[in-house]
Amino acid sequence: MSRFWSQLVHQLTPYVPGEQPKIADLIKLNTNESPYGPSPRVLDAIREATSDDLRLYPDPQCLALKQALAEYSGLQTDHVFVGNGSDEVLALAFQAFFRQQPQPLLFPDITYSFYPVYCQLYEVDYQQPPLDAELNLNLEDYQQPNGGIIFPNPNAPTGKALPLEAIRQLLTKNPDSVVLVDEAYVDFGTESAAPLVKEFPNLLVTQTFSKSWALAGLRVGFALGSPELIEGLTRVKDSFNSYPLDRLALAGAQAALEDLDYYQQLSQKIIDSRTWLSEQLEKLGFKVPESKANFVFARTPEAVDAGQLASSLREKALLVRHFKKPKIDQYLRITLGTPEQNKKLIAVLKETLSL
Amino acid sequence: MSRFWSQLVHQLTPYVPGEQPKIADLIKLNTNESPYGPSPRVLDAIREATSDDLRLYPDPQCLALKQALAEYSGLQTDHVFVGNGSDEVLALAFQAFFRQQPQPLLFPDITYSFYPVYCQLYEVDYQQPPLDAELNLNLEDYQQPNGGIIFPNPNAPTGKALPLEAIRQLLTKNPDSVVLVDEAYVDFGTESAAPLVKEFPNLLVTQTFSKSWALAGLRVGFALGSPELIEGLTRVKDSFNSYPLDRLALAGAQAALEDLDYYQQLSQKIIDSRTWLSEQLEKLGFKVPESKANFVFARTPEAVDAGQLASSLREKALLVRHFKKPKIDQYLRITLGTPEQNKKLIAVLKETLSL
Repeated sequence: MSRFWSQLVHQLTPYVPGEQPKIADLIKLNTNESPYGPSPRVLDAIREATSDDLRLYPDPQCLALKQALAEYSGLQTDHVFVGNGSDEVLALAFQAFFRQQPQPLLFPDITYSFYPVYCQLYEVDYQQPPLDAELNLNLEDYQQPNGGIIFPNPNAPTGKALPLEAIRQLLTKNPDSVVLVDEAYVDFGTESAAPLVKEFPNLLVTQTFSKSWALAGLRVGFALGSPELIEGLTRVKDSFNSYPLDRLALAGAQAALEDLDYYQQLSQKIIDSRTWLSEQLEKLGFKVPESKANFVFARTPEAVDAGQLASSLREKALLVRHFKKPKIDQYLRITLGTPEQNKKLIAVLKETLSL
Repeated sequence: MSRFWSQLVHQLTPYVPGEQPKIADLIKLNTNESPYGPSPRVLDAIREATSDDLRLYPDPQCLALKQALAEYSGLQTDHVFVGNGSDEVLALAFQAFFRQQPQPLLFPDITYSFYPVYCQLYEVDYQQPPLDAELNLNLEDYQQPNGGIIFPNPNAPTGKALPLEAIRQLLTKNPDSVVLVDEAYVDFGTESAAPLVKEFPNLLVTQTFSKSWALAGLRVGFALGSPELIEGLTRVKDSFNSYPLDRLALAGAQAALEDLDYYQQLSQKIIDSRTWLSEQLEKLGFKVPESKANFVFARTPEAVDAGQLASSLREKALLVRHFKKPKIDQYLRITLGTPEQNKKLIAVLKETLSL
């Protein structure tokens, strides 16, 4: 606490990211990173951009990357916004669209835990319709008056996805609200809402290079939306930081978009691992809702406390994520690792649970 | 305009950075970049960090870089904050310290034009005491009740610096306000206020890797202040973006701090160019206030319109910055180039002014 802080800073409960400890031979399945490295073409492009030109500012408009993303998404450049990770893009969207609304923003009670933090920082009123007992989102909850809607699809940490038809229904029922579909995990088997961008001026889709593109360390995210939404984001961004993406991040993300085959194979490997791991966990007595993400959200067998299990795994240099929250405190969110890491996890679980 | 924008977004007048045009053989003296490249050790460190580890998030606390900056500044790690360029650090400081104050923030009428933009975005009331006719800041103007004080030292775009004793006086007279000294250009001959950080809990100093460190393309800035101010910044940052600095930016900035000799030589070359260019411009009839920055702020000779002159130079692929603002609309801000570029500028000026 400090008398120099604004009142708001006193009230903040900052987001706490998954831990990044330095443990020898750690198997790190807690922050949904890719177990595989990025395309070699990405590394080459970054090395090539590592030159005396670093003395110069990057392109503040990131035009080349936006063009590449427009082509990738089947949209135009003025449908695209880029930022320093999708977290920054989300923060700017909260400022641009969800502030100063007469009605509360809506998002599920179980979802990405950064949303309520943005609401604190930008003084956004919100309501959290509860997921049902099966952790499904109830579309009817989002047909009340609101100042915007946001949810991840697939949802985090549940991994459950809504079909495109449900998104369309939400958009149709909420023509006066910005509906933000946070597609951080979309590439692992969910249909993107990007094609609806041309049809619905109130739709904003965000994606990230941190998961399926294996570039969490490079900090690149983007949004797709109508030109008026993109302009709103740009106005906020240009009032905050002219150059949030550095030259190397721009070069790397562009090169990634030029190697789609590599990334399709990467995502397929994750999907295959997900099938295998889900089955194995179920054999051990876990309940595993069908995940469409690069993680599974597994309910521990009865009489096994999820928090204690996470601690036991940590002692064995195996990191998974546990949320001390009502409704999900008996679940573990387990990022999919390499096949070897997944096997190791199952072996350690068997040992720990004395199965 | 869009009905989906928050009221605030409608009211914003975003900051406009110096243009980054694609003109062949352009001599670019408009955005205060370094005319020399970064240390080769920086490039090596970045190439080394360009590995499969990019799949992993960076350290959200940036501890290694903070430690290196603490050592560089003669302070402790809890006196250091890092961000995605000093613009991001400034934006977070406006949120952490200048919002919700009963009194207005004070900054000069002629100064970094991003400050009023932050005030709009974060709804900060402000007043702008005028610089005097010689473009000097009058210390007495900053002894009225206020909700904070911010100014660059040396000031931009004037290049004029306050001595450390004046900063100390300001801090002593304003014990209840956060005083933010924006030292983007400090390394070109101004004494830093960093040593006062241990003495004044209300002092925040910001610096950047974009100018003297020749890394504008890498986006790294930092703040030095009391642990309570650093914690305030951290609370806002952790409510906004867990990982604003990517792995390559962290590696590059750390490597720069390990090659201080290289950078001292770089700054000395700029200082030598400044002496030469100031003299040459004065010979051509410009008035050139003593600059302590990597640019000069030169008043055009009588009967020469600065805006027109900037346009004429642009036609000859020579970019300088002109601000269409009262009091300074007859000045040009000219970034110091290499000796060759500076000579070329003088030759083109002679030609253009028919001297």
